[in-house]
This record gives sequence, C-alpha cells and structure tokens, in this order.
Amino acid sequence: MAVRISTAEEYEALLRDYDTWLFDCDGVLWRGDHSIEGVIQVLDMLRRRNKKVIFVTNNATKSRQTLLSKFEQLGVQAHADEVYGSAYAAAVYVSSVLKMPKTKKAYVIGMAGLEEELRSEGIAFLGGTDLADNTLESFDLGTWKRDPDVGAVICGLDTKINYTKLSKAFQYLLNDPECHFIETNEDSTYPSAHGLLPGAGSISAPLRCAIQRAPVICGKPSTTMLDSIQAKVHFDPKRTIMVGDRLNTDIQFGQNGGLSTLLVLTGITSEADITGPNASPIVPDFVTQSLGDLRAADKAP
Amino acid sequence: MAVRISTAEEYEALLRDYDTWLFDCDGVLWRGDHSIEGVIQVLDMLRRRNKKVIFVTNNATKSRQTLLSKFEQLGVQAHADEVYGSAYAAAVYVSSVLKMPKTKKAYVIGMAGLEEELRSEGIAFLGGTDLADNTLESFDLGTWKRDPDVGAVICGLDTKINYTKLSKAFQYLLNDPECHFIETNEDSTYPSAHGLLPGAGSISAPLRCAIQRAPVICGKPSTTMLDSIQAKVHFDPKRTIMVGDRLNTDIQFGQNGGLSTLLVLTGITSEADITGPNASPIVPDFVTQSLGDLRAADKAP
Repeated sequence: MAVRISTAEEYEALLRDYDTWLFDCDGVLWRGDHSIEGVIQVLDMLRRRNKKVIFVTNNATKSRQTLLSKFEQLGVQAHADEVYGSAYAAAVYVSSVLKMPKTKKAYVIGMAGLEEELRSEGIAFLGGTDLADNTLESFDLGTWKRDPDVGAVICGLDTKINYTKLSKAFQYLLNDPECHFIETNEDSTYPSAHGLLPGAGSISAPLRCAIQRAPVICGKPSTTMLDSIQAKVHFDPKRTIMVGDRLNTDIQFGQNGGLSTLLVLTGITSEADITGPNASPIVPDFVTQSLGDLRAADKAP
Repeated sequence: MAVRISTAEEYEALLRDYDTWLFDCDGVLWRGDHSIEGVIQVLDMLRRRNKKVIFVTNNATKSRQTLLSKFEQLGVQAHADEVYGSAYAAAVYVSSVLKMPKTKKAYVIGMAGLEEELRSEGIAFLGGTDLADNTLESFDLGTWKRDPDVGAVICGLDTKINYTKLSKAFQYLLNDPECHFIETNEDSTYPSAHGLLPGAGSISAPLRCAIQRAPVICGKPSTTMLDSIQAKVHFDPKRTIMVGDRLNTDIQFGQNGGLSTLLVLTGITSEADITGPNASPIVPDFVTQSLGDLRAADKAP
C-alpha cells in the first residue's frame, strides 16, 4: 500500500533519503500552458540542497532544445543535460548502448525532433523528414534499392506516416534479421491540445504487425530509458526517486528500474485509480497531492 | 491426419460428396499471371456436374468487377455473383448482417475497390479516396467536425494511409462505443509483384492499438466471410468444401465454418509445412498436389 505523505517531517524525510529526483513533465510540472503551483519553488529547493534533477518525458517529436523552450516559457529552470525525451533516449541507446558503428545508418519513421537528437549523437539516418519519403505516391518495391548500410529502424510519432515509409522500414527489418528495431515509446495515444490522437505506439503498430518481431522500446516504462540516462549520468538507484502522474508509465518505469516512486494527483491518475475495488495493481511507494506540496519541507523543524 | 488423394476414384468420391466448392484464387487457380495447369478444365467439369462454385479472396483493394477481369485475363470462367473479395464481404456484412440503417455512413480507410463494393450495397461513406483525406498536411482536431451519422469504420489495405485518416477513424471509434469497427481482412503482409509489403492487417494496426478494441474481421479465416456468403447464397456446410493453399487462412477458414477442406501445394504451403516435426497444427481433411489433379475424376470407372 502506498504511503500518503502530507507533513513537513515526511517531506523532509523524502529529501533526506533521495539524492536524485526524476520527474515526468506533463501533469507533474505543468498542465497545458500553466506550471503547477509551487513546482518552481520545489525545484529551486532541490537545487539549493544539491539534489540531482532529471526530467523524463516520452515526447519523441521534440528534441531536448525544443523541450527546454517549453520549460523556459513556463518559468521552470532546466538545463539541456537534465532533460531526457524518448527521442534523445533512442539516440543515446543507438550510440552508447548498442554502440552502432558510425558506418551504419538508421532508417527513421519520425519527425524533426528525433532527427535532431540522432544528429547530436552522430548517427547518420535516412527517411524521417526527407521529402522523397514524405509522399502518398505509390511505392514500387521493384525499382527501390535498399541501402546496405542501414543497421537500425527507429520509429517514433510521425504525423506524416505513409505507405512508403512503412514499406521501406518493413523491408529493412524483413531482409536483415540483424537490423535493430527501435521504438521511441509505446504510448498508444497522445493528448493533443484538443483531445487524444494516435501516439508513437500506434504509428509503429503496422511494423510490429507486419514483421512479427518485438521492438526495443526507449520510453517509459521501459528500462531502456533508464539505461540511456545511466549512459550519461551516474546515480544510485537506491537513493533515486521517480515522480510521476501516471501509474502504467511513470510509476511502472521507476519500479522497473529499482527506484522509489512518488505519485502526484495533478495529472492523469485520480484518487479512484489508487483506492477502491478497481485500484491499479501498480502501487507507488508514496503519494502526495501535488509536487508543490514538497515546499512544506522547508518548514520542518 | 490429412488424407492424401491421388486416384481417379478418390477424386470422383470428392465430387460425389460435395455440392458447393469454395476456392481461394492466388496459389490455387493461378500463380502471378499464369493459370495453374488443368484448373480451367476442373472448373468446367464442376460446372458440367452442376456444382456450385464460389471464389473467396482476401484481396480488399479490388472490387468483384476488377477481380473478374483478372479471371477473364487468365481464361478462367467466373461470374460476378461467384466472387467474394473481402471488400465485398465487408460491404455485405454492413448491409445484410449488421443491416446498418441507410441514414448512417461508414468512414473508410481503403481504396477504390472497397468504395465500389460499398456503393453496390448502397452504403454511404466518407474518407477512402476523397482527396481531402489523402493528404500529409497536419491534422487539427480543434477545427475538424465529426459527422454524427458515421456508424462504422471500415479499414482495408490502403496504400495512401496517412495520419488524417487514422486520426478521423480513431475519433469516430473513440467517441462512439456503438460505432462498428470492421476490417476487411487481417493479413499482415501481402505478396506484391516484387516481394512482401505491409497488408491490410498492418494498415489497421494503428487503430487497433490506439482504440484497444478488437475489430470484426471480414476476410478469411473469419467466419464473418462465410456469414456474408451465406447472406447471398444458400449452401449446406456439410456438403461444402474449401480449397486453398494456405493453412492459417484458407484451411482454418473452412474449419471455422464447419466445411471440409482440401489443401493444394501449388501456393504458399509446402510439403514440409504439413509433415515432419514442425508441421502446422492446422490439418486439412484432404491434400492433393494441384487443383488440376481433379481432372482425373473424369477417368473414374
């Protein structure tokens, strides 16, 4: 059962026990275009106490630079090396975990943010925003030539998904069992400004279906995301806590990685999801209403 | 265990026991652009003996009229009311099994052949080949208006698949639990002239993933295909045999519908798939090398 925390002493104990703090963004730091009350002060407090702060998001259409501008817009202090999007995690996975040779290329289903992160990690790629592949013209397998240097297919949310991209990615995976199959994240939907739309997991579903092979998933709740963070940052899982608003991504992610977990109720998960007869089997270590509540720690004796 | 048949008497017994003969096309009647030896004579013989002949294909991009021209090209006699493609099966399912009111519409992910069959069954539709939906422009949920009359989403192979079509289909299914979700067939790949490409099952995979709801499948091996045939033709399953070259579609389809089954080895399935340690668990009633073998029945005493 999750421990409800609400007193200054309890928040202070949390700050004492954990050196590294991982945060989901949407629903934890902000909602839409507004930062959640008290969050800016809590982050300031953590930095004042020399805590390591890392932001972990499954958004794969934005590079860290673009994500940073969202932080800036909302007045939330963050540095590029503290932000892990699933596009960056995919790029780091290929460069630092797989250590794919620099002579190899990736075939990309995805958008500019994913390309930017691949470039930053020195990974050559085809597809993506290339105009030649962003077409509804017929795809002719008879005249197309496979690039023998493609060693990975990387698939993220791509709102210009089409049959040419799917067919090329499929051919690379079909003809080379060694070709890596990587998904930025498996979120089946994503919350657009006006409602739910198909997410990265749905965009890669045709490939999973056609190739009948499971991809490596780089976003939460996969531990691949944590492997990518660990490739860049050193932290002790025992003294690390993941703060999130979603049980099946954030909290599961923390638990998969052996971290402690703190659920906040400012996002997707409501009181009903964690209590009562239909409560989720995923139980966080701690629950508090809002990340802003942690301000109270400063009032502890 | 499947019965191997090879003598004139065995073929004659088959002709005596079954009044209705269902045939898969590719791999049974023809391969590529050539009809399989003896097939034309066997079909003539069946018609001479007053057998009912029905052609059942999962191809959902072609209407019956277009499929007929393929028959004609190869010199195989067939009539429009003998041909069941999965596009037609989907249209018949909506009109004759679901009996969707004529005031309702379908939202279509699919091509001209599917539209032609929907028109022939008097089903109004949106999407499909409509130029407005065949675009790689951004889809804005905020400015789009759902049509309240859409009562079904029908998804087939669509080589102009894009985010706008997927998003609209998703919205119809998300916002109306009563909206029917129909797939022409679940083939994950299809054999193009130059090799495998993603099939109808892969094209609808994003919707299945995003909506987390199982569609009704109209192609083989689903019994929905048989329901559609039965809505138009009367036959006794006990005196009906399905002839096909694929175990997991054709033979499974026959077995699901309580029909007898005959496997031919002129297509996908090879000897190794039905004998030896890795044989499929799907076992046809009868096996013969080729549909053309049935010519021998005329030589039975």
